[in-house]
Amino acid sequence: MPEYKAPLRDMQFVLHDVFKAESLWQSMPGTSEINRELADAILEESAKINENLISPLNQPGHEQGVSWNDGVVTTPDGFPAAFKQLAEGGWVGLSGPEEYGGQNMPKMLVLLFEEMLYSAGIAMGLYSTLTSGAALAIEQHASQELKDTYLPNMYAGTWAGAMCLTEAHSGTDLGLIRTKAVPNDNGSYSISGTKIFITGGDQDLTENIIHLVLAKLPDAPEGSKGISLFLVPKVKVNADGSLGERNGVNCGSIEHKMGINASATCVMNFDGAEGYLVGEINKGLQGMFTMMNYERLSVGIQGLSAGQAAYQWSSEYARDRLQSRSPTGPKNKDGAADPIIVHPDVRRMLLTQKAYVEAGRALAVYVGQQLDLAKFGEGDNKARGAAMVELLTPVAKAFLTDKGLEGTVLGQQCYGGHGYIREWGMEQLVRDVRIAQIYEGTNGIQAMDLMGRKVAANGGKTAMLLIEEMREFAKAEAGVAGVEEFLSALSRSVDTLEDVTRFVLEQAGGDANVIGASANEYLHLMGFTLYSYMWAKMVVTVLKSESGQGEAFDTAKLQTARFFVQRLLPQIQALSESIKNGSATLMEISEEAFI
Amino acid sequence: MPEYKAPLRDMQFVLHDVFKAESLWQSMPGTSEINRELADAILEESAKINENLISPLNQPGHEQGVSWNDGVVTTPDGFPAAFKQLAEGGWVGLSGPEEYGGQNMPKMLVLLFEEMLYSAGIAMGLYSTLTSGAALAIEQHASQELKDTYLPNMYAGTWAGAMCLTEAHSGTDLGLIRTKAVPNDNGSYSISGTKIFITGGDQDLTENIIHLVLAKLPDAPEGSKGISLFLVPKVKVNADGSLGERNGVNCGSIEHKMGINASATCVMNFDGAEGYLVGEINKGLQGMFTMMNYERLSVGIQGLSAGQAAYQWSSEYARDRLQSRSPTGPKNKDGAADPIIVHPDVRRMLLTQKAYVEAGRALAVYVGQQLDLAKFGEGDNKARGAAMVELLTPVAKAFLTDKGLEGTVLGQQCYGGHGYIREWGMEQLVRDVRIAQIYEGTNGIQAMDLMGRKVAANGGKTAMLLIEEMREFAKAEAGVAGVEEFLSALSRSVDTLEDVTRFVLEQAGGDANVIGASANEYLHLMGFTLYSYMWAKMVVTVLKSESGQGEAFDTAKLQTARFFVQRLLPQIQALSESIKNGSATLMEISEEAFI
Repeated sequence: MPEYKAPLRDMQFVLHDVFKAESLWQSMPGTSEINRELADAILEESAKINENLISPLNQPGHEQGVSWNDGVVTTPDGFPAAFKQLAEGGWVGLSGPEEYGGQNMPKMLVLLFEEMLYSAGIAMGLYSTLTSGAALAIEQHASQELKDTYLPNMYAGTWAGAMCLTEAHSGTDLGLIRTKAVPNDNGSYSISGTKIFITGGDQDLTENIIHLVLAKLPDAPEGSKGISLFLVPKVKVNADGSLGERNGVNCGSIEHKMGINASATCVMNFDGAEGYLVGEINKGLQGMFTMMNYERLSVGIQGLSAGQAAYQWSSEYARDRLQSRSPTGPKNKDGAADPIIVHPDVRRMLLTQKAYVEAGRALAVYVGQQLDLAKFGEGDNKARGAAMVELLTPVAKAFLTDKGLEGTVLGQQCYGGHGYIREWGMEQLVRDVRIAQIYEGTNGIQAMDLMGRKVAANGGKTAMLLIEEMREFAKAEAGVAGVEEFLSALSRSVDTLEDVTRFVLEQAGGDANVIGASANEYLHLMGFTLYSYMWAKMVVTVLKSESGQGEAFDTAKLQTARFFVQRLLPQIQALSESIKNGSATLMEISEEAFI
Repeated sequence: MPEYKAPLRDMQFVLHDVFKAESLWQSMPGTSEINRELADAILEESAKINENLISPLNQPGHEQGVSWNDGVVTTPDGFPAAFKQLAEGGWVGLSGPEEYGGQNMPKMLVLLFEEMLYSAGIAMGLYSTLTSGAALAIEQHASQELKDTYLPNMYAGTWAGAMCLTEAHSGTDLGLIRTKAVPNDNGSYSISGTKIFITGGDQDLTENIIHLVLAKLPDAPEGSKGISLFLVPKVKVNADGSLGERNGVNCGSIEHKMGINASATCVMNFDGAEGYLVGEINKGLQGMFTMMNYERLSVGIQGLSAGQAAYQWSSEYARDRLQSRSPTGPKNKDGAADPIIVHPDVRRMLLTQKAYVEAGRALAVYVGQQLDLAKFGEGDNKARGAAMVELLTPVAKAFLTDKGLEGTVLGQQCYGGHGYIREWGMEQLVRDVRIAQIYEGTNGIQAMDLMGRKVAANGGKTAMLLIEEMREFAKAEAGVAGVEEFLSALSRSVDTLEDVTRFVLEQAGGDANVIGASANEYLHLMGFTLYSYMWAKMVVTVLKSESGQGEAFDTAKLQTARFFVQRLLPQIQALSESIKNGSATLMEISEEAFI
């Protein structure tokens, strides 16, 4: 397995040159102390720990996997020590508020750490990001007492977090959960039920695990209106903050999965466990969605990270592997054959990965910017940021992970037969990234969330905000020399997106199935349009000489943008045509015909 | 893991109703004894053995895998007994000539057996199909003595076959092989070298293994012009046909792979092994390509088979799994939720699988028909069949396996989180089918073979034969009531294919990179066009009341065809646009930019 090298220059290009993060940070009181120098220092330290500590454990962890023995979960060799080092370095609390020991770093920066962490190993990364995600939900919804008791240790990474939603019969449809919460006399609740697919539900990395559990009170309203959220520690915490007795939470077994073998995916049994209400009774989904939205971007980044690793390694392989000759005559005359990178079809596979990864990174930072505006911004900026986060989160989750699978499969393909062999590491990327299209809401659910709740529910208002922003960008930058081919591609994408948005809004009134029938293609259409926007932004940065990365870097950026526009972007036409052909062909066939 | 049920009705529909196999068979002397009744009896027996014997071993075999101990390979529990039963049933020799104990069945029929076999388990299937593939190469290229010695036991399945091409530094580029063949005094050769990725290179299923090995004589011309083919048995065969002493062939280790865990993928060491020349000196690739072409269609069928299993199981799951309500109101009022098959996006995933699988099966049978014409036909029919086989083989191999991955991923996605868990069986389908895009020539190699050797090399002549055939079909059936929407979709596809073919031919003269730069998209464009043709053929069969499968079947066929045309076929436009944007964006970027 090749070594992982963090793509620092590309990260700095996106963060500083394209999105001009420093000026944004300095304009907001909550982030005004953060400057480019600090951000770069953090990125460099992040690169070191992920390259040298986390990445070397990734393949051995895949081969060894997690084990379960009589209720005790053991992670692969080296994982506990590495997680401790990650925690002690302050990485688990990178985005946490200072009052609870966090580093208060903006999402635009934190997500680049997350990208490196997941490239170095999705399985290890999950233990960390689920902890910060759970801490965020507690921070925003729990009582001051719970926050004071739990957050400092969570942001310090000495306690981990887990989210306990799914039950065997209840995944997407959380209204069906059966886990019960019975009030105790002391204000706590007694939680009983079985949850499945709990990432990090048990592990040997931290001395405590803080579960956020969805459960129903006796006589709660049916369905999703009767769900409450509880904090349930694995080990109870004494009044002085020290650890007390074990709570009634146990790992009944672990799942055997396609990938992320080093991540403990647990069946968790709650047997009268003591739990504490988070937020209001019957409004538990609200708190969970705070965490879910945070996790959804993070899951999207898993797609980006796996895609980056695949791109990097398959590029190396394609430059080393000698096989056959270039169609235009030998390029490596002294060798027995040319490196396979001379072949147009190998370049197609590498450039497709490159174009998706680089646009994906820019999109992730763009969504991070909106999250930062929503959190640290003021007035209109804050509200607009929050609206954009709502719109963009499902796209980032699903499109980045769909492109993550596509990219890892292409990277694996570049290796020929070796790509199928475990020791080369490429098959692990495909297997690990596959879950990212499924968990935290399948990509189909993301598409319906986008099309239904984020676009149709407000009559396309937020979508039009985005469309307008892209149009204004194109108008503002139209005078930049050399930009025309990229802006006209962007305009074509935006026009197509607007046209299809209007089509779906018009149809949806008379046909309730239109939302679901167009959701997947619509999400991809918006994804391609956003990538087109990201490429235009990167191109403009280069053409205006605002890139600080040198001529070779700039040239490659323009060439990759051109490849994206000419060879990948044509897919929007097919997506549009497919949507406009309507929902009838999906619905008219009988259930019995599916045999 | 759900049970596999062979799609017998759809197979019979394609074979009898659409392709009218019986009249073809009865028109050719070599197959005139085969009728519909016999074919159906074979299909039904095939269904039984694959459903009841092979399929139940598939998941346990995946979990147990193959083991290697001091040179001895052990397949999973139950594999040796099952293979023996398969062999004794005559299945290994189904397509072999009667004079060597085979059943002499036409490919159109045999490939439906292969589809079932691979759906029941690709790993087990490989042991059988590689044996019949190796036997075919021996039959067509070896001396009478070798044929008499080896073929009866191979077609009986008591001896197996393996093909030994790849070396660590030589995969696609076979000209680089280093395995040596030194002539012995007795007319045999002494073979030395190391081959990798040898499927069934060793196993405990058969008493002998017949290796077909590519090697170079001393002073052979460099590159692919100096490659000879040798038959190297694992155990030498005495003059009386009994087994003699072990030959110098040993399995050095087995590979640990992403999937097909129950298939022994071996490193084979040839250490002065006794081998016998097959065909002429330095013309070994010819014999190997006989086998490769046969195997390539077979590998394509692996994509179809995995796609069929995924479609079948995810359809079952979608009808059983209760989660959320239909967008048009509850459909299962007494249940806690509706089955997920009510959701348009779940239907999209099921219908996409269904549309690809059913068209894929028709395409496989169509290619089988061309193979049968080439083998059993006479005069123009024979020549035309041979030309079509050349053209269609790379498309069938690559398009069926690309759609196989797409389909299995969609099927897995329908299961939500359960799709990622090993016990449900869906992840195995994805892992097992992935190799089919890689081995027997990667799909990129297939695309270059199609675009370069099969289309451009003869100035598009064979491609035009196919285009003409499709146009004539559309013209001949234009009067059938209700066919218009399907024929106009076909005509659009054919026009696009012709237009792009001409474009590539024009460009290729001035730019040697155009072939490789358009190959992948061109193969997909031809694949979609062929699926469009297959759907039109199936639709015409139904509309002319030539389907014998009943009204519900016919209705579903029309509806699936309409879904294909409206929701999937629009992709051809994107493929065409991408190709027409040329090769420049692939080639202008420097190798150093890929970091």
